[in-house]
Amino acid sequence: MAVRALWFSHGTLHLIDQRLLPNRQVTRHLRHVREVAGAIRTMVVRGAPAIGAAAAYGMVLARNEGKYTPERAAKLLRATRPTAHDLFVGIETVRAAWAAGRDPLAAAHRYRRAIVEECHQIGIAGAPLFAKAHRVLTHCNAGALATVEWGTALAPIRVARARGADLFVWVDETRPLLQGSRLTAWELVREKIPHAVIVDNAAGPFMRTGQVDAVIVGADRIARNGDFANKVGTYEKAVVARENRIPFYVAAPWSTFDVLCRDGRSIPVEERSEAEVLELSGRRLAPKSSRARNPAFDVTPARYVTAFVTPGGVVRPKDLAAMLGQRAVRSAAAARRRLTE
Amino acid sequence: MAVRALWFSHGTLHLIDQRLLPNRQVTRHLRHVREVAGAIRTMVVRGAPAIGAAAAYGMVLARNEGKYTPERAAKLLRATRPTAHDLFVGIETVRAAWAAGRDPLAAAHRYRRAIVEECHQIGIAGAPLFAKAHRVLTHCNAGALATVEWGTALAPIRVARARGADLFVWVDETRPLLQGSRLTAWELVREKIPHAVIVDNAAGPFMRTGQVDAVIVGADRIARNGDFANKVGTYEKAVVARENRIPFYVAAPWSTFDVLCRDGRSIPVEERSEAEVLELSGRRLAPKSSRARNPAFDVTPARYVTAFVTPGGVVRPKDLAAMLGQRAVRSAAAARRRLTE
Repeated sequence: MAVRALWFSHGTLHLIDQRLLPNRQVTRHLRHVREVAGAIRTMVVRGAPAIGAAAAYGMVLARNEGKYTPERAAKLLRATRPTAHDLFVGIETVRAAWAAGRDPLAAAHRYRRAIVEECHQIGIAGAPLFAKAHRVLTHCNAGALATVEWGTALAPIRVARARGADLFVWVDETRPLLQGSRLTAWELVREKIPHAVIVDNAAGPFMRTGQVDAVIVGADRIARNGDFANKVGTYEKAVVARENRIPFYVAAPWSTFDVLCRDGRSIPVEERSEAEVLELSGRRLAPKSSRARNPAFDVTPARYVTAFVTPGGVVRPKDLAAMLGQRAVRSAAAARRRLTE
Repeated sequence: MAVRALWFSHGTLHLIDQRLLPNRQVTRHLRHVREVAGAIRTMVVRGAPAIGAAAAYGMVLARNEGKYTPERAAKLLRATRPTAHDLFVGIETVRAAWAAGRDPLAAAHRYRRAIVEECHQIGIAGAPLFAKAHRVLTHCNAGALATVEWGTALAPIRVARARGADLFVWVDETRPLLQGSRLTAWELVREKIPHAVIVDNAAGPFMRTGQVDAVIVGADRIARNGDFANKVGTYEKAVVARENRIPFYVAAPWSTFDVLCRDGRSIPVEERSEAEVLELSGRRLAPKSSRARNPAFDVTPARYVTAFVTPGGVVRPKDLAAMLGQRAVRSAAAARRRLTE
């Protein structure tokens, strides 16, 4: 029943090709780290926690190929996409195990299991937020496809729904790559959760006219002060939600929090190909000589966030740094030192 | 050189088929009022001032067909789309002339010429706003295609550019029907005005990071208090512009102002087919069982508007009612009485 974005068996990483959903469900079978790097770059697999897990298994494939050092494999995978913090955590977790002579596969499995368990905890922590907020807006896909299982933004919706909440989801289509209409809607159809797809432009009027009770999104990287990067469009939704006094929640596992990142200005934002904006399925949408800009993410300042939904509970932005704690800062600093040595 | 959305000659209304741009430039030749009604409904022609002019000529075709009363022809055309005020003004102008035994064609020509002249005046009035605001964001198409010639939002940009201003236009693609990437970009390419197409989601981050100096849009209906309807997405841009202290301008000819409409709550908002959201060029974008909501417009409260750019000059929302004046209120009330008698 449950959607799984990826799994590993018999020395092979299996990934649902998310570029082809919802029209075709195709699984890719990867045995080489270069294939994993390509799958992350081209968004066969996407979503910060899912690409972290994919990269962790990519490290395992690199070790099995026999021609990589842990450092070279990590470098190859780190170069795929810059914004999601989880990618770097997933790579580093397995690199450290491999370099220390421990089993990379066991480390990758542990990493993936932790993500899944954390997403389930996010669901349990966040479900009470939706006991009375029946009409929920989400942007992009922060479901099982983005996180291996459960999802981040969708986890509390799944848990609340399983507990009998009468929920309706507004699904932003999420241009340019339509992760909302293609992926989030696909997950909601599978679980028979009532929903309506809207163009991203329509989120505003539905919020203004009292038809949205809460907004919940995932994140690609969350700075220590609560500023966070997520799919482009998140910032507009957050501003309009606050303008209309609608709670705005951000759900993420620990791997998305970058405690070494002081604030949003330090988060690198990937700019992707113009073609994603100017073409759809090979059809040109704009004049041939028009150019485009295509930032894949935007940064939303912490002041627009009502609360973060974490595996450790629901936390206000002002309490985030304390929750993350000095121990986390020190442990990540140590990891960063290892990376740069 | 100049783009013209429509023209009338030899008893025929000629329209550029705006559904096919920018890939194909096809002109439709209409001789029956039912064809004009169909062209407005299916958005062969769109943009509030342009559909007002098209409907004015549609009244002329109805008279020529010999089988309509002025009232029946007006009723047919009024039923096409509910939001743009210009549609009702264009129809009523010609209906009144026809019913009074005056020449409908002369009335339609006068109406179209007045729109074109008012758009030129909007350009002259608004151009100084862009003397120092070099990077301008616009949403949807409020160019010549939307207004016969010149445009509303694009008129000040054209005049400022002709005076030597060094302008760059951010073009929101404007889902679902892509009037930005298809039509605004096409007009800008023709006039060699530098621009970049962005997904609607990307307007926010470019505003937040100081890369937008001003926003200007057209309107479909402006209430007496300055609340206005425009293409869905306008409200989000207005909120985010104010949040970032970026001037937000609304350009429109007199026919867009509905002085009998007290505020935005009285503006009817058209909801169009789900298919516009769920399909593109016949290709399904979402799961087959997913539904969609598709409001074509949204209403932006007057408090987000820096100024209206009108044929009579640039006016702040608080001064709008006074400018529209008691005379306009009386004349429109008289017109409304005629409509309902």
